Amino acid sequence: MTRDTRAVAQAWAVGGIPEIETGDDLAEIVAAAIDLDGGLADGDIVVVTSKIVSKAEGRLVNASDREDAITSETVRVVATRRHPGGVTRIVENRLGIVAAAAGVDASNTPEGTVLLLPVDPDASARRLCDALRDRFGVRVGVLVTDTLGRPWRTGQTDAAIGAAGMHVVDDLRGTTDSQGRRLDVTVSAVADEIAAFADLVKGKSAGLPLAIVRGLDRFVTEEVRVPGARSLVRASDEDMFRLGSAEAHAAGYAEGHAAGLRERVAGGDPGSDEAPGV
Amino acid sequence: MTRDTRAVAQAWAVGGIPEIETGDDLAEIVAAAIDLDGGLADGDIVVVTSKIVSKAEGRLVNASDREDAITSETVRVVATRRHPGGVTRIVENRLGIVAAAAGVDASNTPEGTVLLLPVDPDASARRLCDALRDRFGVRVGVLVTDTLGRPWRTGQTDAAIGAAGMHVVDDLRGTTDSQGRRLDVTVSAVADEIAAFADLVKGKSAGLPLAIVRGLDRFVTEEVRVPGARSLVRASDEDMFRLGSAEAHAAGYAEGHAAGLRERVAGGDPGSDEAPGV
Repeated sequence: MTRDTRAVAQAWAVGGIPEIETGDDLAEIVAAAIDLDGGLADGDIVVVTSKIVSKAEGRLVNASDREDAITSETVRVVATRRHPGGVTRIVENRLGIVAAAAGVDASNTPEGTVLLLPVDPDASARRLCDALRDRFGVRVGVLVTDTLGRPWRTGQTDAAIGAAGMHVVDDLRGTTDSQGRRLDVTVSAVADEIAAFADLVKGKSAGLPLAIVRGLDRFVTEEVRVPGARSLVRASDEDMFRLGSAEAHAAGYAEGHAAGLRERVAGGDPGSDEAPGV
Repeated sequence: MTRDTRAVAQAWAVGGIPEIETGDDLAEIVAAAIDLDGGLADGDIVVVTSKIVSKAEGRLVNASDREDAITSETVRVVATRRHPGGVTRIVENRLGIVAAAAGVDASNTPEGTVLLLPVDPDASARRLCDALRDRFGVRVGVLVTDTLGRPWRTGQTDAAIGAAGMHVVDDLRGTTDSQGRRLDVTVSAVADEIAAFADLVKGKSAGLPLAIVRGLDRFVTEEVRVPGARSLVRASDEDMFRLGSAEAHAAGYAEGHAAGLRERVAGGDPGSDEAPGV
């Protein structure tokens, strides 16, 4: 029932990845598994779960140090909420990624440990991409993925936190629609869409951390070193959701309250309720 | 280079969809195009861009009424930002979907018109699902998709705004990871991941509004009437980003300022800068 035409996009999980340990040669392990799977075709995209990248890079820490690890990965706290199971901390981490617990993960890790995200997932993707292009002699792209929650919608989706050898966006601004009008605001985050696609075949509970995506070679580039997943992070001055609503409200309340009290001390007109300078 | 194994997920665009007009029998048109494409297999998922659903349902309005249309679709304004090109309004619409301009769209519509989202995309998906199951005699799922921006990350991804005949989430809570530990917080939003996947083959500028996804039949249900895409909308009491940061800050400032002034009128201790009741 498969269709052997050029316009079909496909993804499948690659088995045979053993439990990865600190110092393992991930590129060699991934290449060996892909070799047994049938190798790579020109334009393929190799998608690896960040977890195995982190493990190879020795990013495991003791579970007892989890809170300290989250704190050290955190650049900025975005939102915090207490609930019956504990506290959810949504933070921006070193990589600019906004994620619960800074991406520190306790599932599929050895007992008593938690796992941090790779130090530089774009660099990890470039190393893997270089090695796979050398080994298989074809032009391939690489994505390193993580599972992220999102505001407004339930559930998580996989997204690209590292990328090499491929475009991470498909910038359609300036192209025209079927009526010949310019598409002004459409920039498809294709790396995230491909990461989501690959998640559907890798499967979290199956523990398959590697997938091959075929048929999307239009996104694969000649160069390995092109803008990576870091470029998918929204610039802070364009981010309308820099802070959780409760946190922003509380900060505003404190500032407004202090301003109201200052007006009191200054002996202004008690009847006015306008902000200073208004 | 395609692999004819059970574990491969595939997607391809289906051509032959004409320009859709108000009152067109969308199910008949979609079924005819799929028929020419080779029909459906048991477990296939049919993904349609909401645009053609809206057009068939007559959801076009005059472009001059665009602002009024956005207002009438809006339940709640989440964030507003002025920029050189105009104003971006992020709003929650009737469907609970948080989107720029309430999902009102001006691309790929007839000159002088804009398009609203379908009245009830889950109902639209159910009608299409019923018709396709009748016509092809197989168990299929249907997704109706739209292109959404997201906080924190650049670019847009496609998401499911209507669904029928399939699970929209893969709830892994309570299952175990490879170490036998419970996966406590993983609920994969598979409908959104499949919508993203299908976007990669439909392509916005190509104007192909229909795709078939094969190989993910584990998400397709016996029943057509199962919880739809509406269930992907996060409940307001679980949503930490109900308001834009600037809007929440301004609301907090106004409340804090008024409280500060009230304390002044009440003649409280001028040295205190604590909020009332603290």
